[in-house]
Amino acid sequence: MDVAKIQQHLQDNFETDLEDIRAFLRQPSISYTGEGIKETGEWIIRWIESLGGTARLVPVEGGYHPVVYGRIDSGAPRTLLIYGMYDIMPADEPGWIAPPFAAEIHDWEDQGPCIINRGSTNTKGPLMSFLTTLRAIIAVEGKLPVNLIFAIEGEEEYGSRSFHRFVADHLDELKDAEAMLFPMFGRDVDGTPAIRLGTKGPLYFELKCTGGDWGGPTTRGVHGSNNVWVASPVWRLINALSSMVDKDQRVTIDGFHDQVRKPTPEDIELCRTLAATRPPEIELRTHDVTRIKWDMDAFTAYITAQTQPQLNIDGIWGGYTGAGTKTLLPHEATVKMDIRMVPDMEPDATVELVRRHLDAHGYGDIEMKVINNYTWSKVSLKEPIVQALVETFRQMGQEPAIYPLNIGSAPFYVFDRMLKIPYVFGGMGHGARAHSSNEYISVPGILDFEKSMVHVIDNYLRLAAK
Amino acid sequence: MDVAKIQQHLQDNFETDLEDIRAFLRQPSISYTGEGIKETGEWIIRWIESLGGTARLVPVEGGYHPVVYGRIDSGAPRTLLIYGMYDIMPADEPGWIAPPFAAEIHDWEDQGPCIINRGSTNTKGPLMSFLTTLRAIIAVEGKLPVNLIFAIEGEEEYGSRSFHRFVADHLDELKDAEAMLFPMFGRDVDGTPAIRLGTKGPLYFELKCTGGDWGGPTTRGVHGSNNVWVASPVWRLINALSSMVDKDQRVTIDGFHDQVRKPTPEDIELCRTLAATRPPEIELRTHDVTRIKWDMDAFTAYITAQTQPQLNIDGIWGGYTGAGTKTLLPHEATVKMDIRMVPDMEPDATVELVRRHLDAHGYGDIEMKVINNYTWSKVSLKEPIVQALVETFRQMGQEPAIYPLNIGSAPFYVFDRMLKIPYVFGGMGHGARAHSSNEYISVPGILDFEKSMVHVIDNYLRLAAK
Repeated sequence: MDVAKIQQHLQDNFETDLEDIRAFLRQPSISYTGEGIKETGEWIIRWIESLGGTARLVPVEGGYHPVVYGRIDSGAPRTLLIYGMYDIMPADEPGWIAPPFAAEIHDWEDQGPCIINRGSTNTKGPLMSFLTTLRAIIAVEGKLPVNLIFAIEGEEEYGSRSFHRFVADHLDELKDAEAMLFPMFGRDVDGTPAIRLGTKGPLYFELKCTGGDWGGPTTRGVHGSNNVWVASPVWRLINALSSMVDKDQRVTIDGFHDQVRKPTPEDIELCRTLAATRPPEIELRTHDVTRIKWDMDAFTAYITAQTQPQLNIDGIWGGYTGAGTKTLLPHEATVKMDIRMVPDMEPDATVELVRRHLDAHGYGDIEMKVINNYTWSKVSLKEPIVQALVETFRQMGQEPAIYPLNIGSAPFYVFDRMLKIPYVFGGMGHGARAHSSNEYISVPGILDFEKSMVHVIDNYLRLAAK
Repeated sequence: MDVAKIQQHLQDNFETDLEDIRAFLRQPSISYTGEGIKETGEWIIRWIESLGGTARLVPVEGGYHPVVYGRIDSGAPRTLLIYGMYDIMPADEPGWIAPPFAAEIHDWEDQGPCIINRGSTNTKGPLMSFLTTLRAIIAVEGKLPVNLIFAIEGEEEYGSRSFHRFVADHLDELKDAEAMLFPMFGRDVDGTPAIRLGTKGPLYFELKCTGGDWGGPTTRGVHGSNNVWVASPVWRLINALSSMVDKDQRVTIDGFHDQVRKPTPEDIELCRTLAATRPPEIELRTHDVTRIKWDMDAFTAYITAQTQPQLNIDGIWGGYTGAGTKTLLPHEATVKMDIRMVPDMEPDATVELVRRHLDAHGYGDIEMKVINNYTWSKVSLKEPIVQALVETFRQMGQEPAIYPLNIGSAPFYVFDRMLKIPYVFGGMGHGARAHSSNEYISVPGILDFEKSMVHVIDNYLRLAAK
């Protein structure tokens, strides 16, 4: 590929790309309500077709919204899988400075001109910017130098509940892919691009304690004064929870740490570099956190965050939560929790750990309801598709921050475990405030992102050929 | 007084009384909204005036609704204070089988004909039935054999926040009273009438843990995956709470039990009788409780409920409490709690106990907000006004269940501590479902109640004269 010529073409035609991206962002595709899902899926299909490919909506049994499956066959020797998502969160939170589906351009904080729009960074902006990049490659080169398979899911914001089933049911249509690329705007607020070599696996569950044979009111809350001789399901849940952590919030679930893989030399090396170049304070500042857990030093903080599991309480509720002094002995209390599983913790065994801990501590009555549970995933820094992105950043003058893992979760195990292919997610470009008001993407960042995607494809073809 | 003749008069004129009571119940007097408060206060004033007394609405500085203060001076040697309330809860809960302000009469469960109406049992029904009783006494006797002072408050359902100030500001107008009577329908579902020799004092407070210098997100919830290196205010609150009870939910706040008075011989005797005649299972069954706390035997259960304090959790909340898997590390968590103070725990010292416990266990940052806090109150079984009611029940063929305390709270300390007079609350009659849909009172119970009030006054004058 003539990378320089394609990048010049992108620069010369940026206004057209920008308007195509803004038009796409103005089309809502709300996962929870289904609003605009079909129109958005068809929009992507038209784009793939306009690039010389074929595409269709593939419904998934038990799924909410179909996958856009497409192919662009260029007769090239290599094939990449492009993963993405076309659904977005609702935009009903307060505080928007512009309508959430108007794709207006405003100066945002110190980021210069930005498109303010729901889904702009997460992730319809990078998805459409990737398609406009392909258009530029074809315009300059006549065709793509690589075959592409697209699997763009429509229920990522619903927890990707059926994407693994799509993959299982369509292995034949995916098996040609040698690596996966998930185009994303990857630069942080301070400009550093990130590469994350995997994801933790989420075990999201509820624990519910209800009055019953052990005691407590069984069917409804009763007057609070009865607590003097009637036990409380709220106290019982609190006691059960407090058996799972020590005073410093270190997890004490029996066997919780047994399956955790010892940090590898690569983990240690990457965390050393992170600690030296990017103090955790930078990351925590964006969360308005003034003190890191356990007063860890920079290296310990990174190696902990990147290689250890957590036991988080996402929410807790029970009884009367309004104003004033209503007095109530509640009959139930519930907590939502998530464990982030790291290598080599596995989903079913982790559920078992929690269940067994509760039983062993006398809380066999506490109900455990698993809401989401899939495994972690890991890719090596040495993979050509990963190195292709690392080199891209360096070619564009940026040294990436490379993390052993994403401390959050994504169902990328479908790639490394089911399809057995390596993957990478990222790119130049900057966006932020996903799931919040005023989600935005930097306008100059879009062009950077487009240029970076040309590099990634070019680098990958070169590195994979070695 | 010619008790028999008055009771016959009540029986003969019951239809008139019933219609007067129903008319009064149809007039709403909602504490929270103020709807009908003024009209209801004036209604009571007209009644007191029609009985030959004087009355007025007395606003209280900082109060929500005025007190109806009235007097009926018969030139009698003795004076009783009639305490009551004319405000009621809203009636917006679902499930009413009849309009909540239509005073319709329906057969209710096994109670026979009942008036279904908000405020019927709590406590506009007994208030008006007491006034109709006075009318009958005057009709037969020409005048009342006792002077009456009325103090009927309008914000009981708001926590009686200013009633103690009314008493403090009007000691002169209340000082003639030698005892207080709070007319209430006092028979349980199974027909047993109850006498409670005091009330516990409520300390209702909130504890709130927010991220800060100790750690945690400080201004907003952040993505839950950050819990791996950012501490959690929810875990911190749970740890603080779990330091306040042991695994069996016994309170372990330092010094919590130090001020608790040893059960008196009267307490022990009364609880022995309760245990022998009224197994706790009867009381707990109405709350759908299948197992008593700590598997206590009947006597231990009663002596615990009647003489020991509690530490109840009325409600707890923090983080994400909706459906699905939103992952959040919350920046704050809050719990609403109430302690029921028994003799000799006092409000300020009890607040101090909680505060000092938190500080001593390293939770000085956890905010404690006191919402309601007043002291217990106690009256002796030997008081003439109490014995007057005990004898009343026996005269009417009922053996009352006599409790050392009400395990709930009411600001009756204004009577025994501020006015230094004994008091009693109760009477024949049955009503239930206060604060719930289909609040009701038994129609035959109203006549029983009226007859019982004649006995109470008659008995009191005789016993007090001894």
